[in-house]
Amino acid sequence: MSDQTLTTRKLTWAVIGGGNGGQSLSGHLALLGFAVRLYDIFPQTIAAIHSAGGIQVDGAVTGFGKIELATSDMAQAVEGADIIMIVAPAIAHRDIALNCAPYLTDGQIIFIHPGATGGAFEFNKVLRDQKCDKSITLAEAESLLYACRSSKPGHTTIFGIKNELMVAALPASETQRVVKLLNAAFPQMYAGTNVLATSLGNANAMMHPAPTLLNTSLIESGRDWLYYWDGITPSIGAFVEALDAERLAVASAFGLKIPGILEWYQAHYGVRCKTVSDTVKQNQAYAEVMGQKTLHTRYLLEDIPTGLVPMVYLGQLAGVEVVRMETVIKLGEFLTGRDLTTSGRTLENLGLAGMTLEKIQEYVETGGQVQSTNE
Amino acid sequence: MSDQTLTTRKLTWAVIGGGNGGQSLSGHLALLGFAVRLYDIFPQTIAAIHSAGGIQVDGAVTGFGKIELATSDMAQAVEGADIIMIVAPAIAHRDIALNCAPYLTDGQIIFIHPGATGGAFEFNKVLRDQKCDKSITLAEAESLLYACRSSKPGHTTIFGIKNELMVAALPASETQRVVKLLNAAFPQMYAGTNVLATSLGNANAMMHPAPTLLNTSLIESGRDWLYYWDGITPSIGAFVEALDAERLAVASAFGLKIPGILEWYQAHYGVRCKTVSDTVKQNQAYAEVMGQKTLHTRYLLEDIPTGLVPMVYLGQLAGVEVVRMETVIKLGEFLTGRDLTTSGRTLENLGLAGMTLEKIQEYVETGGQVQSTNE
Repeated sequence: MSDQTLTTRKLTWAVIGGGNGGQSLSGHLALLGFAVRLYDIFPQTIAAIHSAGGIQVDGAVTGFGKIELATSDMAQAVEGADIIMIVAPAIAHRDIALNCAPYLTDGQIIFIHPGATGGAFEFNKVLRDQKCDKSITLAEAESLLYACRSSKPGHTTIFGIKNELMVAALPASETQRVVKLLNAAFPQMYAGTNVLATSLGNANAMMHPAPTLLNTSLIESGRDWLYYWDGITPSIGAFVEALDAERLAVASAFGLKIPGILEWYQAHYGVRCKTVSDTVKQNQAYAEVMGQKTLHTRYLLEDIPTGLVPMVYLGQLAGVEVVRMETVIKLGEFLTGRDLTTSGRTLENLGLAGMTLEKIQEYVETGGQVQSTNE
Repeated sequence: MSDQTLTTRKLTWAVIGGGNGGQSLSGHLALLGFAVRLYDIFPQTIAAIHSAGGIQVDGAVTGFGKIELATSDMAQAVEGADIIMIVAPAIAHRDIALNCAPYLTDGQIIFIHPGATGGAFEFNKVLRDQKCDKSITLAEAESLLYACRSSKPGHTTIFGIKNELMVAALPASETQRVVKLLNAAFPQMYAGTNVLATSLGNANAMMHPAPTLLNTSLIESGRDWLYYWDGITPSIGAFVEALDAERLAVASAFGLKIPGILEWYQAHYGVRCKTVSDTVKQNQAYAEVMGQKTLHTRYLLEDIPTGLVPMVYLGQLAGVEVVRMETVIKLGEFLTGRDLTTSGRTLENLGLAGMTLEKIQEYVETGGQVQSTNE
């Protein structure tokens, strides 16, 4: 079908992932009048939503969103969908790619929301490894559009919707077309330069692993605490700022000027102070974000392998000093007792092994030879 | 004078450092009947002790110890002293060595109590650099004999005295003679294999920097907290155990079997559990050890450059993996914003640059060519 057709009729969405974000997006899309299928690996989640016939949404959006199909069958979920939106922990993206590859058809858009760092690269690598020869457009968002929480399957609350959200396609030559389609549902989404910009825009990689490690005693104290308000003390905030400077330097080496963490808070939450420590305390959206009570959470187990790890590999490739990121990764591995590197988004796992910086820049713009065939 | 003379008459001690440890040791030595001079850089401390005529000691030892001389004049302090005991922050040792070098005389013993890691090496290097040609014997203790605190100049409380304390001389061939002299005052002191054993026995390097960093948010919370009881949570204790395994591996590479941190607690405090986290909570001596309220304390600023840094350099020289120690040093430098490495006890600053492992082993045993002349 032509793009013209897509933009003038209602799109069919497959939402892959029935957690907080996936249920909120599914409900919201249904309320906007789109046809929505929802896939999750947990049969209980699917059964509850199937039984209810949809999702009750509260908060910034309210109403009952009727779901066309709730399923644990990937083939059913993706078949005939125009946009396949992945809303799942980044460490699950690879398995999702493997799972859906056989059922993809020409013209579909896979939108990873969010992609963490390297989501589109990784997905593309899996599709190539699986000899998927369909004409698929990949895209990723820099962050999740909502602050939201699902208290139980079939019910979700959207606390807030970001004013703007950067999206990019791989290759970037497809970004405008994808954003136009996404805007039919989400006018907040705008075109970033390329997937390096969305990937390096991953603020979780800055705000989660290092502060978590430096809060180890509080995490294991048994006390209730507020992740941002208690956890981002002056020295921890200052360290995040230094870590962020490394992230911006990596982006700069790839020719990108991306917002620093303070600008990111300004853009996404409308708060800005001179320091990260002060800024988060001005952010009322953080008033009830509780701290963890164990080190074994996604703040380390996801945000290191799919955030800091690919940033470090991109930085090393570009000759940028990323010693703070490297130190946080090592400390995270020591404290959790896990290898978060080799299982993470290495250049090899992203399909970037052996490429020069210039080759990667060419790849993100045009797709180049990497995307063209199963070489 | 001969050793025979020294052991059969009262020794004269010069105590360099008028802090908690220096005042406690001075007062105790005086109460034991020794002639004691006390040196400190702070005129107020010296004036108060001079005015009082000595030091009031309470706790495990009680009485008023008459001090022969309280002075800020290093020449007066060390002249004619049999044992010059350095009881000062390890980061001050180098300046103390520079300061006293011109006034040393043949036959004196310099006893660094404690030496942290590499105290005797560093002192010896300074004396050689200063072309000191006197026959001096250097020695160091692995830790401070007391738990003590001086509430104000002239008053001190000794909370506890360790059951045993390892001491070694540089060269090790002098250790038995030095320990025999020290035993006249302190029967708890016993001969270690050599100064590598006392240096690598530095438990502060294990218990201070890493736990401090992993307690950053608690340190900056403004709350009162207990350093060991609140600060050494299970994951932090487990990390200390892994760090300690690196320390033992470095010792092993130098042919030394030294006690691990759990054995150290058993020997020094009579407490032992299966984990560091549980062990410290059984140690009643830690019941009132409060946590810091800033990162800028000796737990980082002293125990990194004079503890972890020399351990890392010795480990690297021996081909031992010390990646946890390296990570803690880096993180400490990032969080404090200071270079704690190049100003610290590098091989160069310890006078060990260019030596092989075997050469260092020879040096600690015999003094070898390094100690013999100002080459």
